[in-house]
Amino acid sequence: MKINLISDTVTKPTPGMLKAMFAAEVGDDVFKEDPSVNALEKKVAELFHKDVALFFPSGTMANQAAIKLHTQPADQLICDKYAHVYNYEGGGISFNSGVSCKLVDGERGMMTAKQVEEAINPPDFYHSPLTTLVSIENTTNKGGGACWDFEELKKIQTVCKSNRLGYHLDGARLWNAMLAKNETPQQYGELFDTISVCFSKGLGCPVGSVLVGNKEIMQKAIRVRKILGGGMRQAGYLAAAASYALEHHVDRLAEDHNKAQEIGKVLRQLLFIKKVEPIETNIIIFEINETLVSTENFLEKLAANNVFIIGMGQGKLRIVTHLDYTDEMHVAFLSILKKI
Amino acid sequence: MKINLISDTVTKPTPGMLKAMFAAEVGDDVFKEDPSVNALEKKVAELFHKDVALFFPSGTMANQAAIKLHTQPADQLICDKYAHVYNYEGGGISFNSGVSCKLVDGERGMMTAKQVEEAINPPDFYHSPLTTLVSIENTTNKGGGACWDFEELKKIQTVCKSNRLGYHLDGARLWNAMLAKNETPQQYGELFDTISVCFSKGLGCPVGSVLVGNKEIMQKAIRVRKILGGGMRQAGYLAAAASYALEHHVDRLAEDHNKAQEIGKVLRQLLFIKKVEPIETNIIIFEINETLVSTENFLEKLAANNVFIIGMGQGKLRIVTHLDYTDEMHVAFLSILKKI
Amino acid sequence: MKINLISDTVTKPTPGMLKAMFAAEVGDDVFKEDPSVNALEKKVAELFHKDVALFFPSGTMANQAAIKLHTQPADQLICDKYAHVYNYEGGGISFNSGVSCKLVDGERGMMTAKQVEEAINPPDFYHSPLTTLVSIENTTNKGGGACWDFEELKKIQTVCKSNRLGYHLDGARLWNAMLAKNETPQQYGELFDTISVCFSKGLGCPVGSVLVGNKEIMQKAIRVRKILGGGMRQAGYLAAAASYALEHHVDRLAEDHNKAQEIGKVLRQLLFIKKVEPIETNIIIFEINETLVSTENFLEKLAANNVFIIGMGQGKLRIVTHLDYTDEMHVAFLSILKKI
Amino acid sequence: MKINLISDTVTKPTPGMLKAMFAAEVGDDVFKEDPSVNALEKKVAELFHKDVALFFPSGTMANQAAIKLHTQPADQLICDKYAHVYNYEGGGISFNSGVSCKLVDGERGMMTAKQVEEAINPPDFYHSPLTTLVSIENTTNKGGGACWDFEELKKIQTVCKSNRLGYHLDGARLWNAMLAKNETPQQYGELFDTISVCFSKGLGCPVGSVLVGNKEIMQKAIRVRKILGGGMRQAGYLAAAASYALEHHVDRLAEDHNKAQEIGKVLRQLLFIKKVEPIETNIIIFEINETLVSTENFLEKLAANNVFIIGMGQGKLRIVTHLDYTDEMHVAFLSILKKI
Repeated sequence: MKINLISDTVTKPTPGMLKAMFAAEVGDDVFKEDPSVNALEKKVAELFHKDVALFFPSGTMANQAAIKLHTQPADQLICDKYAHVYNYEGGGISFNSGVSCKLVDGERGMMTAKQVEEAINPPDFYHSPLTTLVSIENTTNKGGGACWDFEELKKIQTVCKSNRLGYHLDGARLWNAMLAKNETPQQYGELFDTISVCFSKGLGCPVGSVLVGNKEIMQKAIRVRKILGGGMRQAGYLAAAASYALEHHVDRLAEDHNKAQEIGKVLRQLLFIKKVEPIETNIIIFEINETLVSTENFLEKLAANNVFIIGMGQGKLRIVTHLDYTDEMHVAFLSILKKI
Repeated sequence: MKINLISDTVTKPTPGMLKAMFAAEVGDDVFKEDPSVNALEKKVAELFHKDVALFFPSGTMANQAAIKLHTQPADQLICDKYAHVYNYEGGGISFNSGVSCKLVDGERGMMTAKQVEEAINPPDFYHSPLTTLVSIENTTNKGGGACWDFEELKKIQTVCKSNRLGYHLDGARLWNAMLAKNETPQQYGELFDTISVCFSKGLGCPVGSVLVGNKEIMQKAIRVRKILGGGMRQAGYLAAAASYALEHHVDRLAEDHNKAQEIGKVLRQLLFIKKVEPIETNIIIFEINETLVSTENFLEKLAANNVFIIGMGQGKLRIVTHLDYTDEMHVAFLSILKKI
Repeated sequence: MKINLISDTVTKPTPGMLKAMFAAEVGDDVFKEDPSVNALEKKVAELFHKDVALFFPSGTMANQAAIKLHTQPADQLICDKYAHVYNYEGGGISFNSGVSCKLVDGERGMMTAKQVEEAINPPDFYHSPLTTLVSIENTTNKGGGACWDFEELKKIQTVCKSNRLGYHLDGARLWNAMLAKNETPQQYGELFDTISVCFSKGLGCPVGSVLVGNKEIMQKAIRVRKILGGGMRQAGYLAAAASYALEHHVDRLAEDHNKAQEIGKVLRQLLFIKKVEPIETNIIIFEINETLVSTENFLEKLAANNVFIIGMGQGKLRIVTHLDYTDEMHVAFLSILKKI
Repeated sequence: MKINLISDTVTKPTPGMLKAMFAAEVGDDVFKEDPSVNALEKKVAELFHKDVALFFPSGTMANQAAIKLHTQPADQLICDKYAHVYNYEGGGISFNSGVSCKLVDGERGMMTAKQVEEAINPPDFYHSPLTTLVSIENTTNKGGGACWDFEELKKIQTVCKSNRLGYHLDGARLWNAMLAKNETPQQYGELFDTISVCFSKGLGCPVGSVLVGNKEIMQKAIRVRKILGGGMRQAGYLAAAASYALEHHVDRLAEDHNKAQEIGKVLRQLLFIKKVEPIETNIIIFEINETLVSTENFLEKLAANNVFIIGMGQGKLRIVTHLDYTDEMHVAFLSILKKI
């Protein structure tokens, strides 16, 4: 039994999801004639109380398109130094939009409204890039699945409004955040101008993300998707999985979160573990006391037990629980951990 | 019975293809661990005798990535004025690569080697963009499914080599060209530095294109795909359809071509048809004598008979035959045509 | 006595201009504190009845900035196939703005309003780039100093307004056009959204162009100039030359035009000259009958007589008269021509 | 007597420099026929023991061109968080090159080799931008004219070489650093791949910077300059000023440095000054104890005495000494300071 805790992207569709996919009615989505894609887009738009939703082949493209829609070349966006859009989208912000990042030194990937405000360049000082967008990631990937304080997000919205900045949410794992904090899509829809949500992470779909926003900001979204090469034909097979996941895989994220907590408890008891960061959702980041065990050695031992996790550099390791991490695997993994 | 002759992109998977998709073994392709994607990429690379193949969510992205791999910003590529990359990829050449086009006034989308040579800017004259790439489309979409003369393509290769230009083939409908002209992927692989082939047109897949090339030019292909947002997770469902199509849907393109010929014959007999362009594959472009019937009126009459085709502007109309255009539809359509 | 007829850019300041430069009051123009630059900008804005004028180190940068101000990446501009912005600005349209060109097959660099209208992509067809700008060049450089028909320019303005397209004039040699056709800057200011005018061509300045436009379109002009690296400090020395030229070198362009006419007459009498294009201003384009004399041979013979002109490719040659082409040189050159 | 200590860019040419400018022999530099530009470029290339030098209208354009020459879109460069290229070039790195910055948290604008090494993204991890360039600024503007330790620069060169990174020096105020640290251009030429030096700051010229490098990296420099709009015609007037400054204004920077020291001494004695940063060249950065005097109030008092300096945000103020800050002004300013 291989236990893959590298990422929640490694999941494969459940039988129910597969069945929904292959029963999907499809059409040519480039002509907007795929009923399954159209249904998903309608559903997600309604969930977030936004006018428009658009299906994308990846979360990266949904984010990159959003950033393009909010900015002009040479503009600057504000994000936490841990932000996925800055760190893990291949430099796409500069490549696709000609935009630079003002990085804020937040806490576990989360900034305060005060930090955001201070990071705005004076709009009349033309030597500095014009600040036009704030980008939030919830939960924070590099921050260990941390969930933002909703009140702080509201304050940041106020800063954005006063300074005429766009407000984008990279919601790759927003489903996890909403479940953990008992929040609703509507609440987020009221806060942000654009939100990307991903179906191929916690929700267990093979492929796909959706970007939502109101008409004005989304006007050119389909153009941008076309230019980036994200226009797919019978994409309904993928969209059907997402619709299925919305119905069947959202609430069950609680199981992933519980398992993460239980793994955390065990890790904290291990002598060679120096620090386990707070666990709020399905990501566990921890540090090894390398005077006792080397990271390499630890990873090897896990691999010998058919358990796979990844290092994040600088002595940090990451575990991610997900749909394909079963109860049986969980029992096995905890017992392996205790024995190491 | 709706007869959709708008494009060969409107096809839906056959039962056999759906079954193959449904049975596909998948994994996380972002980590290159999807066996179905890997198998497809290996197969296509081998077909074209190239080192590397990479799966993309669309033909547009495969072309755009190739152009990026061949060029630097401010460079210029040479293509026919009808080229899909110039006309129908949303301005992506300039957006994604900062590159401009030198448009050649070819014949039905096809240039001569002499025209290509004359279109090269002198490399030392730094006021003009540096020419670094020639892009060919075979068959030509806007040129009515025309197939290039292979000898001319060889001559253009010589021009490219002498002038150190990259040589890219937009092979969205290359399968049609190879079948019509009895050519092989290997022959094309020997000619071009990069080739994109599409599975969601004549081959009847829902989604997907592949870009092939040798190691050096493909080195950054996966980076470019990531940046554009084309990295998908369990993409094996789509790749499995493509593998199926390679085995079952290539030879049958002959049927589409035959039907196109037969439609052409009928069109040529109709009084109100001014001109039918030569038909070499599955695309028929023709002009209506608008003094007899208006284009609008003609399209309406077809629609009244549940037949759908599209105008291309400037009095031209296009019919595309495909996998979902059955024998039964064919008989019906020919009879409708004759009656109009 | 070297006779340089290669371009009107080769002129050196007259003693009067040099004196004006030398006496210029200067300051730091990056802080907008250079009185000579400010005075020039004010003067040019008033001439064209526009709100704002901005000084640039080159005509290329003034044009490139204008194109940036009018467009977003992936947009398309419409221009004649001869346009300087497309042919001789290094591919900057795509590099700086991510924009592509729809090239119109005009007459001597000049399009009709009908051609412009037909070149607009349908705004809802998102596969094609969005058309947002029309760019005119008057006089046309590659078109042999041809002057546009003002009535046609008005019709094109109407097309732009109906289709919400920006309307830019590359007026590198607008001074020549206005003198030849007896038009005023105000007339042009009423027609175009932005106009670049150059001082280092016919007007004989060492360096400098100015871009004019109303407040809204020019709002980010200084930002764009900064980003491209066009912010200069004590630029007043250059601006003073331009102000001097506006007073002393505009009317004298008539002399350059007359000389061009006289050269044309002589050329037309020469047996080995196949064709002399119409001469409207200071540029003469002609073709040699290469069965009688080769272009190379002709250029060599001129060079042996200390006369320098340049070829334009495809058997065409170009002569440009200018401020430093004196009466004495003119007599000498005509006599050399007749003797060849 | 107005005392302007805002920047060393506000200087006006001395009579000797003006004389040299207007005696300059000029030509059309776009054809590389301006003898004064050619002479300056030759001189600067030789000074730094590099193959090629190219004249630019601004330091920003010289830096931006260098960054473009070193990188491809989506790449990442490493620089200190204070770097001028990141903070004060209008977002040009992303606009012109599609490149992002990894910002290092250095000391007064200066990084260690260790920090640089840690900032390199793993080249095989294609989710992160590819690191290809390290950019240094010496002296550091935002760091208060601080001079790098040459041994650390050597170590960073080693890091660059091992990791195949380009190594660029923004030498806007390199003349100050070399004088202060008794270093030579040759030493810097041996270290860096490209160096920009500015003539319109400490050296007192009206306009102009030069970029030096060896043939390979500089191959496309003139193309990039053209594209950005930096090709000027009779630029020799500006170049002549630079040549003059190299002969007459380098050694005298010592006076600016001495005056800065003396100002620093007085500032340190003032009760309401909280902190004066170390002064190494001609820039003084200091903080006011705002419980005693507000920054605004202090600036107003100076202005009332006809003295002008600028705030840098966050309670910091900056004074810059320069060629036009005379001994007489110095005596007056010190006395004003003491009286406040």
